[in-house]
Amino acid sequence: MVVGGGFGGLWAVKHLAGAPVAITLIDRRNFHLFQPLLYQVATSALSPGEIATPLRRILRKRRDVRVLLGDVTDVDLIGRKVTIATRSGAAPVSLAYDTLVVAAGSQSTYFGHDDWRSVAPGLKSLEDALEIRRRILGAFEAAEFERDAERRRAWLTFVVVGGGPTGVELAGQIAEIAKRTLRDEFREIDPSESRILLVEGTDRILAGFDERLGKRAIRSLEQMGIRVRTEVFVTEVDEGTVILRQHGVLERLSAETVIWAAGVAASPLGAVLAARADVEPDHQGRVPVTPELTLPGHPEVFAIGDVARVQGGSDAPLPGVAPVAMQAGEYVARTVRSRLLGRPAPGPFRYRDRGNMATIGRGRAVVEIGRVRYTGLPAWLSWLVLHIAQLIGFENRLLVLIRWCLGAVTGGRGARLMTNERTDQAQR
Amino acid sequence: MVVGGGFGGLWAVKHLAGAPVAITLIDRRNFHLFQPLLYQVATSALSPGEIATPLRRILRKRRDVRVLLGDVTDVDLIGRKVTIATRSGAAPVSLAYDTLVVAAGSQSTYFGHDDWRSVAPGLKSLEDALEIRRRILGAFEAAEFERDAERRRAWLTFVVVGGGPTGVELAGQIAEIAKRTLRDEFREIDPSESRILLVEGTDRILAGFDERLGKRAIRSLEQMGIRVRTEVFVTEVDEGTVILRQHGVLERLSAETVIWAAGVAASPLGAVLAARADVEPDHQGRVPVTPELTLPGHPEVFAIGDVARVQGGSDAPLPGVAPVAMQAGEYVARTVRSRLLGRPAPGPFRYRDRGNMATIGRGRAVVEIGRVRYTGLPAWLSWLVLHIAQLIGFENRLLVLIRWCLGAVTGGRGARLMTNERTDQAQR
Repeated sequence: MVVGGGFGGLWAVKHLAGAPVAITLIDRRNFHLFQPLLYQVATSALSPGEIATPLRRILRKRRDVRVLLGDVTDVDLIGRKVTIATRSGAAPVSLAYDTLVVAAGSQSTYFGHDDWRSVAPGLKSLEDALEIRRRILGAFEAAEFERDAERRRAWLTFVVVGGGPTGVELAGQIAEIAKRTLRDEFREIDPSESRILLVEGTDRILAGFDERLGKRAIRSLEQMGIRVRTEVFVTEVDEGTVILRQHGVLERLSAETVIWAAGVAASPLGAVLAARADVEPDHQGRVPVTPELTLPGHPEVFAIGDVARVQGGSDAPLPGVAPVAMQAGEYVARTVRSRLLGRPAPGPFRYRDRGNMATIGRGRAVVEIGRVRYTGLPAWLSWLVLHIAQLIGFENRLLVLIRWCLGAVTGGRGARLMTNERTDQAQR
Repeated sequence: MVVGGGFGGLWAVKHLAGAPVAITLIDRRNFHLFQPLLYQVATSALSPGEIATPLRRILRKRRDVRVLLGDVTDVDLIGRKVTIATRSGAAPVSLAYDTLVVAAGSQSTYFGHDDWRSVAPGLKSLEDALEIRRRILGAFEAAEFERDAERRRAWLTFVVVGGGPTGVELAGQIAEIAKRTLRDEFREIDPSESRILLVEGTDRILAGFDERLGKRAIRSLEQMGIRVRTEVFVTEVDEGTVILRQHGVLERLSAETVIWAAGVAASPLGAVLAARADVEPDHQGRVPVTPELTLPGHPEVFAIGDVARVQGGSDAPLPGVAPVAMQAGEYVARTVRSRLLGRPAPGPFRYRDRGNMATIGRGRAVVEIGRVRYTGLPAWLSWLVLHIAQLIGFENRLLVLIRWCLGAVTGGRGARLMTNERTDQAQR
């Protein structure tokens, strides 16, 4: 049984093709989401359907796989079964497993400030992306209406919290919307006068990359008109106001749009697993696993991806990125196969870092492959080709490619809709 | 001032290009929606972004047009100003007009049974479409989980209420999803065994068409496995149950998915206008207008499209379809130009009926152009070409064409996502 159809779970299922096992894949959603492009949905460049593929469609030829839509809420390690809350509101279902792979992913975290969640949305789900899209576009609309100069300024101020790849990508895209996409479309305001801030608590951005690339990224962002502020902490977020702290000095900023790209924690299933196995989850709610990616004392239970804490080669745990999850999924499939054949286990999991990349804007990106580092247009083209290639399904590849090509030429964005407004839902 | 960026309002603005007027276009949404393809979003064939285009983008070259995002809640006919509730939650704004064009569109109506709205969603907005999509796909998912045969049957029963074009199109698409798209994707259920009912109160479907075409449509639907029931009324809709009445006999049906395509009423602004002008709105909430499409006693106020009741050539009012709204928008622009030039008014509005078409399924459609009527593949191809041509924007045309071609070949549907779940929103 596999819990989660993201990169970890889906790759485990894929690499079990042909093995003499009956697989049940359980996910809360009916689709696999290509997370690395989620920020493009949030910034109107792509539609949700273009980066998501139904799990049933991906696996329809696999007669050995049963897909179920539900929420795994608990695991009984002794009885070897999971509890599943179904989406239809029926009573929870209990399902037995022989081997369990937990790849339940992650969620945004606010470091104890959960009240910030409604003011400063994070970017983990398609719904999050549409909410951020609605807020960014809505801010320009509100500014066009606003007569008070102060308030107008607050509507045209965008704060992205967190200098990791997601924060950098979001800030870059907001700058392109303001300076390029919306050009000529407003009569009262000039969107290009927007203030865009990228705020990071540590002293550098893109911490997963070489330090020089982080500095290059800052330069690129600043060329695009984004103000990058490092060593700055957010101490308060409220409707219309953000309070920042730098070296003990507080600063109040009027900003109507705040986006949270600062913290990621494991799915609640990480803590559930840890409690059941009587181990301590780490501060991100991840369950610590053995070098074989199994739960301590439970070789039949694997935990992979963002829900698990795996010690890397050095002391740092492996990062929560797609390649780690995919390789872990493949590793789990290999282990299961060895066990079925009575062969020796493949040894501890080793992550092969094949490189790291992040885009900043049109023609701007940073790429790091081992000791090779490059930036600018070549980096951006590498990023583009790799992401198109990794998308699942020919149709999505073609559509994303067309959207990007047309977007690059016209500056337009194909999915610039404000939807999912709460007022509309109330009206229904 | 133009209220509403649908076919009526947008066409009025388009045909005022170059006229010496300053135009303010107000809409509740930031996009023009191509309503005729909304059912394809509801049935997973298209993404929202592919049938909607930002109004600002469409009008960005028109320096004479200011676009505002807001809800017009009231009209002061004496003071000649409108009240606008902004989306940002600020205080309502009052804006003066010289000439007002109200093209605020329509909404679903439940003939006094507003409690059915949450159980049997209608199809007017993109949010409605995503809700219907979620329910259709979710029903198959719930059935796959369900062990009780009765309950499973209820999950696999789909009732579409209303035999107009929208009802026919929805029923046809649900049949294609069940029999073609989902083939091989489930392990416990066979989606092709779904029961799909199209229920219509009168004795015929597609009432706007020639009677023979309606009969042909019934035959096509039945070949696709849809049960068409005419002269049947819905007397009760509740979670999981529909009660039908035919010739006085009641019948209880277990169905988890009910879609409402039975009634359309004018935007609330129709009733507001009627009250302010001291005329009686019709039973659909539409304000009656003069043959010149103006409010009685107020030649400076036009009402067009679904919000207005226009007597056609015979006694029946003009239908609430896109061509009527578009021609009315053009007519209003012509009238305004004549007035500016001091020329005589163009005479009463005359709707030129250029034909009518509805699709039923892949390769199946009905077309009526004057006395020419045809069905089947030629009708379907005409429908396809016309709808691609009418979409706004090269990008959307290209993407929809690709989605349709690939869908026709593979039977897949590019936008088969269940999103906007209420539980997810609660979790945020």
